Amino acid sequence: MKTITLKTESKNSTIYIGKSILNNIGDICFEKLPKAKKILVVTDSNVAKIYLEKAIKILKEKDKANIYSISFEAGEKSKNLNVYSDIIKAAAMLQFTRDDAFISLGGGVCGDITGFAAATYMRGIKYIQIPTSLLAAIDASIGGKTGVDIKEGKNLIGAFWQPEAVIFDTETLKTLPEMEYKNGLGEAIKYAILDGGDICKILKTGLDENNIEDFVYLCAQSKVNIVEKDEKEGSIRALLNLGHTIGHAEEAVSEYSIQHGMAVADGILVMVHAAKKNKEITEEEYKEIKSLIEKYDVGTGINFSLDTLMPFVFHDKKAKNDGINVVVIKGIGKCEIKKMSFEEFGEYIK
Amino acid sequence: MKTITLKTESKNSTIYIGKSILNNIGDICFEKLPKAKKILVVTDSNVAKIYLEKAIKILKEKDKANIYSISFEAGEKSKNLNVYSDIIKAAAMLQFTRDDAFISLGGGVCGDITGFAAATYMRGIKYIQIPTSLLAAIDASIGGKTGVDIKEGKNLIGAFWQPEAVIFDTETLKTLPEMEYKNGLGEAIKYAILDGGDICKILKTGLDENNIEDFVYLCAQSKVNIVEKDEKEGSIRALLNLGHTIGHAEEAVSEYSIQHGMAVADGILVMVHAAKKNKEITEEEYKEIKSLIEKYDVGTGINFSLDTLMPFVFHDKKAKNDGINVVVIKGIGKCEIKKMSFEEFGEYIK
Repeated sequence: MKTITLKTESKNSTIYIGKSILNNIGDICFEKLPKAKKILVVTDSNVAKIYLEKAIKILKEKDKANIYSISFEAGEKSKNLNVYSDIIKAAAMLQFTRDDAFISLGGGVCGDITGFAAATYMRGIKYIQIPTSLLAAIDASIGGKTGVDIKEGKNLIGAFWQPEAVIFDTETLKTLPEMEYKNGLGEAIKYAILDGGDICKILKTGLDENNIEDFVYLCAQSKVNIVEKDEKEGSIRALLNLGHTIGHAEEAVSEYSIQHGMAVADGILVMVHAAKKNKEITEEEYKEIKSLIEKYDVGTGINFSLDTLMPFVFHDKKAKNDGINVVVIKGIGKCEIKKMSFEEFGEYIK
Repeated sequence: MKTITLKTESKNSTIYIGKSILNNIGDICFEKLPKAKKILVVTDSNVAKIYLEKAIKILKEKDKANIYSISFEAGEKSKNLNVYSDIIKAAAMLQFTRDDAFISLGGGVCGDITGFAAATYMRGIKYIQIPTSLLAAIDASIGGKTGVDIKEGKNLIGAFWQPEAVIFDTETLKTLPEMEYKNGLGEAIKYAILDGGDICKILKTGLDENNIEDFVYLCAQSKVNIVEKDEKEGSIRALLNLGHTIGHAEEAVSEYSIQHGMAVADGILVMVHAAKKNKEITEEEYKEIKSLIEKYDVGTGINFSLDTLMPFVFHDKKAKNDGINVVVIKGIGKCEIKKMSFEEFGEYIK
């Protein structure tokens, strides 16, 4: 098992990564939630079938709190105010106090919505993330970004709220549908381009059962390094948005039928093309990055026109009144944030 | 005009109190929101009739941002997730960015819900409070507690989110219904008991047009002193809950037909009786406090039985798993927080 501590203004979160550590969630959770007498495990319908019973059993064995659970229909469409409200109401009806806590058992959707419920129930209670997808493990569960979607846009409602712990059992990837695994690979390639180094090396060699613990650890450490310097995305945290400007627009245009990680991969592809066109990377660097994307066959291959995407770019959460912070690729391990007007960005990626 | 700066971890808020300063909101708002290109003024149906047009006109005169407004039906019943969601959706449809801002123009309900919308729209944007009630001016608008109610309890959803500024025009009290003025007096008496000193002196002499600016300033300063030491209510901020444990329970039992300040006054009365019974104050101190409550004729006079109230006390947001922090009156200007089990609290106030 590997651990990382993420230190922010508000608290120290511990990230645990290891094979079969789902068996240890009892010890970890109660060490992190010493005052909790009630715990609500939030999960989705897919994850519930595989892991909910086991998780509850392990938590109950410690005999330190009453364990409750709530499950919602799997999928991004559930990341809405209604499901959020169901979680809050469950906690209220069960008379959860500020000492009690939530646990998210699932992927990014589950973590985001559970985190937002924890951030806002009684103005904030503790929660723990138990990611069960690659995307959640390397990205969504770390760094305290929580939120729900509304019709008008993704994550338009949310809060920064750090979990007490993130517990990732690499074995859970064995039950992850292939499509979901690929979804995570989009974000994995983002880390490879941002960070270069060993993350890139592993992806080039081939991600497998033997190096997954190291890989998740490296991605998590990469994110922790950034979040510790800029928790609230005032500056360099924006680097983590590589590929997300176009990615988010594509998700919105497709009405969220395209998964996040796949859309991010498409967004990265657009940015690599743009970097080559604008002579910010050499032909060799371009090929190196492109071969990484091709190797893992991520992205949708769907190409929306710029005219279709741009209105959604203006409307993106990351857009400001005077333009947008664009993460520009200057090579593997060399990305930069560049402030561009919407016109400049349109020109840059055209 | 008087000003106070409230310094917390996250920001410096400025509180402006003065006669006719509604005329200055253009200057103040744009000084505090230099990047905003869009502002959404949130108000309720009562306040809209009197002040909305004027406020919008003054803001528009500066020609620095597009000014929009949204109004909801006046009353505590509107402090719900639906109205919250309407505000968020309006901002999203108007394509508000993180640089844009909300303004609450109204009483405590308006401030709480606007503040929560600001706290959570795109994970937090700036907002300004323009309280138009005594209760909001001396209490609700200051300190960054935001939230909405759900059927299961008041303020069960919320966040700590400090406004950039609080702007209180004492002239707005002239249009405040008498019932709403009394509602504010419940919290005013709370400050008199907590603080003693000049706040108490003014209330004893008689609150009127000539001393209202000083009075609001003193109450605001008293709250600022506490919030600066303990923003997130980890310790002494709980002092501000004097009378609120019973008050909140009474509001809940009455299904919120009893107004907050009146219920707080009832709660204070219960605590004064209890203090006398438990020999924590002298007969003289008891009379002094009681005469203050009688002078302003606050409280409902309705007496719910302890058996009716206690289940709501357990369920109060301030309750923790091992009991509740009770604000005990030891005399005017002398209150203390005492941790009690629910049984002890029941015995204390019986």
